[in-house]
Amino acid sequence: MKALVYQGNGDKSWTTVPDPGIEDDRDVVVRVDAVTICGTDLHILGGDVPEVKPGRILGHEAVGTVVAAGTSAGRAVGDRVLVSCISGCGRCPACRFGHYGQCRNGGGWILGHLIDGVQAEYARVPFADLSTYVLPDTISDQVAVLFADIVPTAYEVGVRNGRVEPGSVVAVVGAGPIGWSAMLCARLYSPAQLVAIDPAPARRQVALRVASTAIDPDEAAATLRRFGDGLGADVAIEAVGRPESFELCTRLVRPGGRVANVGVHGAPAALHLEDLWIRDVTITTGLVDGWSTPQLLSMYSEGLLDPSDLLTHRFELAEMADAYDVFADPAGSGALKVVLNR
Amino acid sequence: MKALVYQGNGDKSWTTVPDPGIEDDRDVVVRVDAVTICGTDLHILGGDVPEVKPGRILGHEAVGTVVAAGTSAGRAVGDRVLVSCISGCGRCPACRFGHYGQCRNGGGWILGHLIDGVQAEYARVPFADLSTYVLPDTISDQVAVLFADIVPTAYEVGVRNGRVEPGSVVAVVGAGPIGWSAMLCARLYSPAQLVAIDPAPARRQVALRVASTAIDPDEAAATLRRFGDGLGADVAIEAVGRPESFELCTRLVRPGGRVANVGVHGAPAALHLEDLWIRDVTITTGLVDGWSTPQLLSMYSEGLLDPSDLLTHRFELAEMADAYDVFADPAGSGALKVVLNR
Repeated sequence: MKALVYQGNGDKSWTTVPDPGIEDDRDVVVRVDAVTICGTDLHILGGDVPEVKPGRILGHEAVGTVVAAGTSAGRAVGDRVLVSCISGCGRCPACRFGHYGQCRNGGGWILGHLIDGVQAEYARVPFADLSTYVLPDTISDQVAVLFADIVPTAYEVGVRNGRVEPGSVVAVVGAGPIGWSAMLCARLYSPAQLVAIDPAPARRQVALRVASTAIDPDEAAATLRRFGDGLGADVAIEAVGRPESFELCTRLVRPGGRVANVGVHGAPAALHLEDLWIRDVTITTGLVDGWSTPQLLSMYSEGLLDPSDLLTHRFELAEMADAYDVFADPAGSGALKVVLNR
Repeated sequence: MKALVYQGNGDKSWTTVPDPGIEDDRDVVVRVDAVTICGTDLHILGGDVPEVKPGRILGHEAVGTVVAAGTSAGRAVGDRVLVSCISGCGRCPACRFGHYGQCRNGGGWILGHLIDGVQAEYARVPFADLSTYVLPDTISDQVAVLFADIVPTAYEVGVRNGRVEPGSVVAVVGAGPIGWSAMLCARLYSPAQLVAIDPAPARRQVALRVASTAIDPDEAAATLRRFGDGLGADVAIEAVGRPESFELCTRLVRPGGRVANVGVHGAPAALHLEDLWIRDVTITTGLVDGWSTPQLLSMYSEGLLDPSDLLTHRFELAEMADAYDVFADPAGSGALKVVLNR
């Protein structure tokens, strides 16, 4: 089969590799019907995730059709399933508390990270009983794939960790696809202000579809002082993965506020404890667990949450290299999420 | 009267100053019967709290007798009161949520910081109705003064922010008085392991009165891997106020764990987001609010919590300079808390 293989040093290729097969009785193998590229994949190519070794097939977000199933996988050949970015054994202490992302038994974020991923014609998915979701006919492949990672990450790691509440002033630093998703999910809680912060005018323009205000980082502090109690954001969501974005969040948040880090980072940030020690700030980091995935899929069916606007570009699977180019150049392409279909 | 006045540049003097008087109808003036020195006072002298200007009387922890009371102070001349380190107006949005430390109406931590403090023969205390507590006869001045700051800070900012739970593995970095208090309060939640971490052998020895284990920072990571699930501390409490202590906490905490910063900091720390982004870590900072002070006083009366062992040295008020010397040299003196009595 063909797959997108990480070659090390920022390099990748769409190349021929062996077909995957069942290795464990909870595995399925899916034919990949829709797959997307994540900002995390760009972080991998940029060297921020050194656990990913050359030869690895990338990708952790897909919709597929089961073509082979282990005896305990709980899925049948022909099932149309969402493949979550997170695989959970369901049995270890972390999984028993719903912390599937921290699975200690071979799960967690493994696809396209520690085992081969889904940017391929076929993929093996471990712990399929807990890590795939049979999809209803009411959701298309292209929309469903957004529930593999970006929507639950925005919801769990951004909005829920940040404890957005009705009436909150919410600042989202980075109006790329994950920031956009965080704003979409934040709206579920009826914030008073939803402020998108991004240096790119085009991204700010698009952000206004979900944000109440969209501003440049240099204007962020002054703008936030005009809202709420004038002390800053109740919640600042970091949706970039750079030290300066994180540090901006810690400056924007009011005393008693929360900084929810969503970005994938490759370098330390400065934590200005000389200012923050007295300010009752809570900072969270996190990998998505995916406990919310079935809820979010239901919310889509019920019309509460529709991430379709994220889909800006569509490709065929064999156009993987082009899709990467478009996704990696949002300033030029205007891309939020790209989807590749069989 | 005599008072301990900050002279700038690390300098201080026990000197004659004007007597305080009532300035607002919620004020009281107390005769100081017992007062202590806080690690924060040493941070002030070290330049870590630049808001404190030369000429300021230091001190924010006292027991006193009311000698004058404003018409709305809710206290009578002769009342024996605990003076909390935190003054809350009770009316602003922060106070309405119990965040007295973040009072926006002239309260918060003001004593010995933004207004003159209690290391003096007499002191003016604003918002006395909400910021002083009439003491029962069952608690001595010397013990009660520990409830002005160190015990509620340890409880609210360390143990409660860190969400210590029954069975938790708790690491306390810094076995000085605030770390010692955090351990005392953590025991209220029945932790499985309470690990004191301090480079000073003498402090480790004393820490064993409340800790289950006391170790050097260099041994901390290896020791914590022997406890609980082997992944690190559920909660790491920073009780020093130095970048390296904070950074140690972030290394000691397990995925999903909490770092509760209690220390007063004068410099930024490195936040290693390249490791932490994926680890579901929660970091909190905070100034005490004092909402727990009445509860903690009750717990003392009920025999649930006794911080008396913190009191290692006693002085007369006029011996303020000696008390500072002893408190600032714990390695030489063995001091945890010093108390000065009238």
